[in-house]
Amino acid sequence: MQVPYSESELQSVVRWYPPGYDIRIERVPIPRVEHPDDAIVKVKLAGLCGSDLHVYRGTEGLTEPTVCGHEFIGEVVALGANFHPGATGRPLLYSVLRVGDKVVSPFTVSCGECHFCRVGFTARCIESRLFGAPQTPGGQAQYVRVPYAGGTLYNLEGISAAAINQNQQTKQVIGSLADSSLLLLCDILPTGVFAAFQALNHPKTLPMLTSRSYPHSSGVVIQGHAVLAPLQPEDKALTIAIVGLGPVGVCACIAVLDMLFAKDINFRIIAIDPTQARRTKVEAIYAKISQAQGQQRQGHLEVSDVLESKGVVSTWTNGIGCNTVLEVVGNNSALSLAYELVRPFGCITSVGVHGAPGVPFTGRELYDKNISLDFGRCPVRGMFPIALDLLLRRQDIFGQVGGETSLVDKIVGFDIAAQTYDDFDKGRCGKVLFDPWR
Amino acid sequence: MQVPYSESELQSVVRWYPPGYDIRIERVPIPRVEHPDDAIVKVKLAGLCGSDLHVYRGTEGLTEPTVCGHEFIGEVVALGANFHPGATGRPLLYSVLRVGDKVVSPFTVSCGECHFCRVGFTARCIESRLFGAPQTPGGQAQYVRVPYAGGTLYNLEGISAAAINQNQQTKQVIGSLADSSLLLLCDILPTGVFAAFQALNHPKTLPMLTSRSYPHSSGVVIQGHAVLAPLQPEDKALTIAIVGLGPVGVCACIAVLDMLFAKDINFRIIAIDPTQARRTKVEAIYAKISQAQGQQRQGHLEVSDVLESKGVVSTWTNGIGCNTVLEVVGNNSALSLAYELVRPFGCITSVGVHGAPGVPFTGRELYDKNISLDFGRCPVRGMFPIALDLLLRRQDIFGQVGGETSLVDKIVGFDIAAQTYDDFDKGRCGKVLFDPWR
Repeated sequence: MQVPYSESELQSVVRWYPPGYDIRIERVPIPRVEHPDDAIVKVKLAGLCGSDLHVYRGTEGLTEPTVCGHEFIGEVVALGANFHPGATGRPLLYSVLRVGDKVVSPFTVSCGECHFCRVGFTARCIESRLFGAPQTPGGQAQYVRVPYAGGTLYNLEGISAAAINQNQQTKQVIGSLADSSLLLLCDILPTGVFAAFQALNHPKTLPMLTSRSYPHSSGVVIQGHAVLAPLQPEDKALTIAIVGLGPVGVCACIAVLDMLFAKDINFRIIAIDPTQARRTKVEAIYAKISQAQGQQRQGHLEVSDVLESKGVVSTWTNGIGCNTVLEVVGNNSALSLAYELVRPFGCITSVGVHGAPGVPFTGRELYDKNISLDFGRCPVRGMFPIALDLLLRRQDIFGQVGGETSLVDKIVGFDIAAQTYDDFDKGRCGKVLFDPWR
Repeated sequence: MQVPYSESELQSVVRWYPPGYDIRIERVPIPRVEHPDDAIVKVKLAGLCGSDLHVYRGTEGLTEPTVCGHEFIGEVVALGANFHPGATGRPLLYSVLRVGDKVVSPFTVSCGECHFCRVGFTARCIESRLFGAPQTPGGQAQYVRVPYAGGTLYNLEGISAAAINQNQQTKQVIGSLADSSLLLLCDILPTGVFAAFQALNHPKTLPMLTSRSYPHSSGVVIQGHAVLAPLQPEDKALTIAIVGLGPVGVCACIAVLDMLFAKDINFRIIAIDPTQARRTKVEAIYAKISQAQGQQRQGHLEVSDVLESKGVVSTWTNGIGCNTVLEVVGNNSALSLAYELVRPFGCITSVGVHGAPGVPFTGRELYDKNISLDFGRCPVRGMFPIALDLLLRRQDIFGQVGGETSLVDKIVGFDIAAQTYDDFDKGRCGKVLFDPWR
């Protein structure tokens, strides 16, 4: 027998129903602390993300109704007993989270104390769960219960306090950021940064960045003798392809540009997507970023359709291909294109969610081109510092809503959630945020 | 009309005939300089390698008779015009090779001047050819024509001269090395070193070696704020699997041990092979290496059968798996085992020659474990310095023939080549070298 809830104990949520394409706005009980490590977060903004569409379309295999969404920021309104003053046995991060703190949540739960969390691989925490699944109801709600909240939530109050010694401006600056800007930290900005970081830090990419030939470029002390011809200027010109210019792909473009401009590397980037509107946005963003670089800048970004991309790369590289490819789509046709575009001893970084088919490579193809592949989910909690740093420095782009160069198209209420899912699914809008209180 | 050759113009070679399993010793013309970049090398020793069996069994797709072998050392007896004093337009390396120089050849041709050679990715030189193919007759011969010889051959005279400033002993020491020891530089020792190097230098492995969490471990300057719990001693204990203990796998074991002992890293290595004799050899080698380390050593190597390996790794790691797996076999069952053994955010390094089947991974499996894969052929020419350094320091192992811890089982003449191929194919002997003049 269920105890009925009073209206004050209920909240509005966006809930998906199987088998798919069925989004309803419902009143459900406000979550409560169920475990001493839990926090309850009052949601200020929740994002609609490309990977929400796997659930929406019914291809994720879910069979029960589920509160959607894995991107949310908000304010802590309740905490479990492990956060109380004097509680012991929990990692340091649990001792600094307070009711009233403004927090950003990664899209997965991470405990903050297992091997994977300590090493920074938070996306594969042994307690990892994705928000927006039956076990962990999602962020498209007025309130969310966050398990392992000390490890999971990125506490902006704590960050400001920790950073203030380095930079007196940081607390003030973080306080001034629009919520729509902070929401990008939940998933898409760290994931784009992760893709860029993996691509540019692979030992097979480092010779081009360090001007030291492989294997001497890897930071390992090598006893031996230099024997080969020195690197020429053209060897150090990095050629990079970014396949897929959805919101994560755009963030990957910005992160790659940021890292390369900071190092004064000569580069050519081809940013590939079949959709004209996405290509136009990336062109506008590149114009803004490169303009700020001024005359000193080296490098060049060009957008391209899928079909013409192979010809462009071939022309740029005399037929040998890109040094590194960021695959930001998550399907086999994107992986196959990445293989075609990459040169021997090149790297393919894939941050999208892939499905059940086998990857489209034979062992011989990978051997014959000496391919390196980096797959998997962004460890958002671990990548936060780099992503926040980029967010702070590029408010001209991330701080906008609805502009020519903005990541976020618009902010809407739950009342039009069903229509918004349909629009997003059909490509009629870009990234949308929900304000659960509108 | 063919001009007949006199006996003094003929040499003995080991030649394979299609469709397979047909090895003949034949008298064929001694090769001549055909191009100004060519050298003719008089072979002192030639190796029989596991990948020769792809040709032997007829699975490599060759349809015409072919002089076998891609491992050879010897002495330069003739050079093309581009090596003559005063010749111009060729890289520096072409100016120092002289008739009479002792040389080691990598198993592939590399020009020494293209982008891939300059960067150190010599295995994918734009002129790359494998010795032992119809276009480039192999090393199991008395004489070999070496294209792009200035880039391809590792000139031991030149090395000594270059190194002598650093170490007055080097020239003398290299001169004292047994030819059977130097022959290991053609393929198996650099390939083992390459596997170890890739495994231990991947950004996903570095946190364990540097005690800095990901992504801060990668040597890139990161502006931001430390947020996670510090690494614990158990995080820094590397768990490594080496799948396949053929000659390259043994070299990979030695290289991994050498790199880890040098850095004073705590580690556990499981060395896996179904063959008892191979496991016994690795145990003996480990005993020798660890004894030399004395009491200070940290770490532990254990050999294992395939079936029991999963249980051992699970026990060692509380079920999370190895940090990194070296796959030194080159087939899908080895790749599948590597996937089962590796932990999330782990790396699989594969240096074996793979075939036509698709790799046994779905995109979801790679995403779900955040797997990184490094595939491909060792850039032997680029890895020579590290491999030679290891060879010099571990003469107790590499200097032997036929001992309990030796890589080379025996040295034989061409007269028993057919029998030797059959024995090697059926696992009745380990690595064999041919002396073409015996």
